[in-house]
Amino acid sequence: MRVTVHRKAHFNAAHRLYRKDWSFEKNHEIFGKCNNPNYHGHNYELIVSVTGEIDKETGYVIDMKVLKDIIKSEVEDAFDHKNLSVEVSEFENLNPTAENIAVVIYDKIKPKLNKNFDLEITLYETPRNFVTYSGE
Amino acid sequence: MRVTVHRKAHFNAAHRLYRKDWSFEKNHEIFGKCNNPNYHGHNYELIVSVTGEIDKETGYVIDMKVLKDIIKSEVEDAFDHKNLSVEVSEFENLNPTAENIAVVIYDKIKPKLNKNFDLEITLYETPRNFVTYSGE
Amino acid sequence: MRVTVHRKAHFNAAHRLYRKDWSFEKNHEIFGKCNNPNYHGHNYELIVSVTGEIDKETGYVIDMKVLKDIIKSEVEDAFDHKNLSVEVSEFENLNPTAENIAVVIYDKIKPKLNKNFDLEITLYETPRNFVTYSGE
Amino acid sequence: MRVTVHRKAHFNAAHRLYRKDWSFEKNHEIFGKCNNPNYHGHNYELIVSVTGEIDKETGYVIDMKVLKDIIKSEVEDAFDHKNLSVEVSEFENLNPTAENIAVVIYDKIKPKLNKNFDLEITLYETPRNFVTYSGE
Amino acid sequence: MRVTVHRKAHFNAAHRLYRKDWSFEKNHEIFGKCNNPNYHGHNYELIVSVTGEIDKETGYVIDMKVLKDIIKSEVEDAFDHKNLSVEVSEFENLNPTAENIAVVIYDKIKPKLNKNFDLEITLYETPRNFVTYSGE
Amino acid sequence: MRVTVHRKAHFNAAHRLYRKDWSFEKNHEIFGKCNNPNYHGHNYELIVSVTGEIDKETGYVIDMKVLKDIIKSEVEDAFDHKNLSVEVSEFENLNPTAENIAVVIYDKIKPKLNKNFDLEITLYETPRNFVTYSGE
Repeated sequence: MRVTVHRKAHFNAAHRLYRKDWSFEKNHEIFGKCNNPNYHGHNYELIVSVTGEIDKETGYVIDMKVLKDIIKSEVEDAFDHKNLSVEVSEFENLNPTAENIAVVIYDKIKPKLNKNFDLEITLYETPRNFVTYSGE
Repeated sequence: MRVTVHRKAHFNAAHRLYRKDWSFEKNHEIFGKCNNPNYHGHNYELIVSVTGEIDKETGYVIDMKVLKDIIKSEVEDAFDHKNLSVEVSEFENLNPTAENIAVVIYDKIKPKLNKNFDLEITLYETPRNFVTYSGE
Repeated sequence: MRVTVHRKAHFNAAHRLYRKDWSFEKNHEIFGKCNNPNYHGHNYELIVSVTGEIDKETGYVIDMKVLKDIIKSEVEDAFDHKNLSVEVSEFENLNPTAENIAVVIYDKIKPKLNKNFDLEITLYETPRNFVTYSGE
Repeated sequence: MRVTVHRKAHFNAAHRLYRKDWSFEKNHEIFGKCNNPNYHGHNYELIVSVTGEIDKETGYVIDMKVLKDIIKSEVEDAFDHKNLSVEVSEFENLNPTAENIAVVIYDKIKPKLNKNFDLEITLYETPRNFVTYSGE
Repeated sequence: MRVTVHRKAHFNAAHRLYRKDWSFEKNHEIFGKCNNPNYHGHNYELIVSVTGEIDKETGYVIDMKVLKDIIKSEVEDAFDHKNLSVEVSEFENLNPTAENIAVVIYDKIKPKLNKNFDLEITLYETPRNFVTYSGE
Repeated sequence: MRVTVHRKAHFNAAHRLYRKDWSFEKNHEIFGKCNNPNYHGHNYELIVSVTGEIDKETGYVIDMKVLKDIIKSEVEDAFDHKNLSVEVSEFENLNPTAENIAVVIYDKIKPKLNKNFDLEITLYETPRNFVTYSGE
């Protein structure tokens, strides 16, 4: 019996969407207000979804405390109250769009999990805009 | 890397569930209070989910402003503050159940998107009742 | 010790905002899309807040089952799946704005409560627009 | 056209996570605060999702009143305001983790539905922890 | 300039509503399903609201970290994953209704705050039932 | 009959909490992670609450379109996708704490309203931290 367990988490961060190799005008055309050179920010809401077999002994797919600790060390400690564009190495040459942040979070959490688990990342940039990535 | 981007939108509308070719009694039996001939209404909450490859240049699957504009022209301008049963041509011979509204929205948005994108429509008729359709 | 107890409820209804004694043009100017002669509708979310002393015997201000029954008979049975503009007598000569609906709900529930209780009505017309009335 | 219809429901219950065949110490190590012998409890939020063809006559996949009644008899009447660990036979020898509760709910609802329907159960144990099960 | 700052918190607990000095029948009549001798439980959502002057130096009414720590020690450590009826001394002779829990929380937090602050407690027992107490 | 009408709005912004006249160490001690010199950010959720008499002609306290336009010009256009600490003149010498932002929003909106209206500002910095200011 394969069940998916979901854990919500949260981090606040600043960012700017732009490409260093584009002019300000082109960045403005493509990224609009998100290209503000002084940065803007979001409360990112994160859902980490892990799919696997129920352990017959415990009745758990994965101990939520274990999953919570992985999210804390890999995501919250790394991103919370940070400027993603300036301080987070993964975005040194990668635009911190919601899509790319979700992929980076996936790539950070996946190796910490048992290989039999499937992983899906849902990331809310605002209550109206969110993305999902499952490694496909 | 295929990512799904989701955009929430909103419209208010009136409707009535019934079939012209059935008696009032049969309509009442099947549709209950939803068959009120004077109509009732809902705040419909809509989630439009588009799945595709991340564009390496921009970091976007699709520019949210583009998606927002498609939703506005195809759904909000067409349905908001309308009586679906009376004023919206798609429901002239189609019962405006949440299921059918979701299919209609899918059929309106799909041709506006790049063919490589997959589309899923989630429509909340009330906070407790909602439907999902992905063209299958 | 005065405590306020709050109970949430829900009803769906159609309505139209207009004045019979105004021209269509003036109604359109003032009420915009809400003046649609074919009606539109909402999921109204209601919070009924009752303030009073805690009963020392039970630990309740008011039994929630009692309050729930009052809301059902006075509001849900009267307004749910109805066209407020056509079928609800209180709005025969009163525009069913959120403000007026809240006052009508207050006036229906207040006489059903012990006189020592204060009452406040919060009514969400949409998730973004809501009103509060407490009989002042 | 296959559409998924979702219905939300709610029940409150007490439970304890532990195995009778383990020492208190081992239970405490694995289940932490959830092993409290005096029980703790949750407001469980449930989403029942049924996938099937739209009935061309009615425009429904399944009548929501029918689905609501199944949820009431199979889940709410059986679990609401109960102690899952003490009073619910399904958990006599099964740890009432969110994962196992979701599987039990699936197994209770599935036989009540038309065989052509697919079923998925989403169960929120808290607003931050939830699980999904679809019979795979 | 007096501003109110609000902090949300969360705890899960079991409880039973009944009076030892009443018969089971009378308890059942008054408290219904809440009188289950095996207990039931809730996810309690708490909002602690502190009103005071903005400190001109910091721009804070109260440092949220300080408020968060008070809530943790006075409420979360004391009530989370507990059986309120069995393990929490304040309810030894006090029915753990939402009203009484809110008063107990107020009485625990108020002495920890600067005397110039006003305090209000909002406690959700379920998403549909909640109470407010401000020491009046 | 005095009714309060509430309108929700939203803006995203970056900020930093610190005092120019304090050392980095003192700023770090008081403001912790919020003192990040590279900024962090939030999705601010705003509720603007206006209290006044119901206009007997229209049934409105204030036309929501008028209120929505005031919020757009005074708050959204001024703060959205901005760095409050760098680009918004009101915070040139004022720490952009949630408390101070709420006061600034109050002071911007109040003069745009009819003098008979009372105003209250509720500002969510995160889903767990929010503030209220009503000009007292």
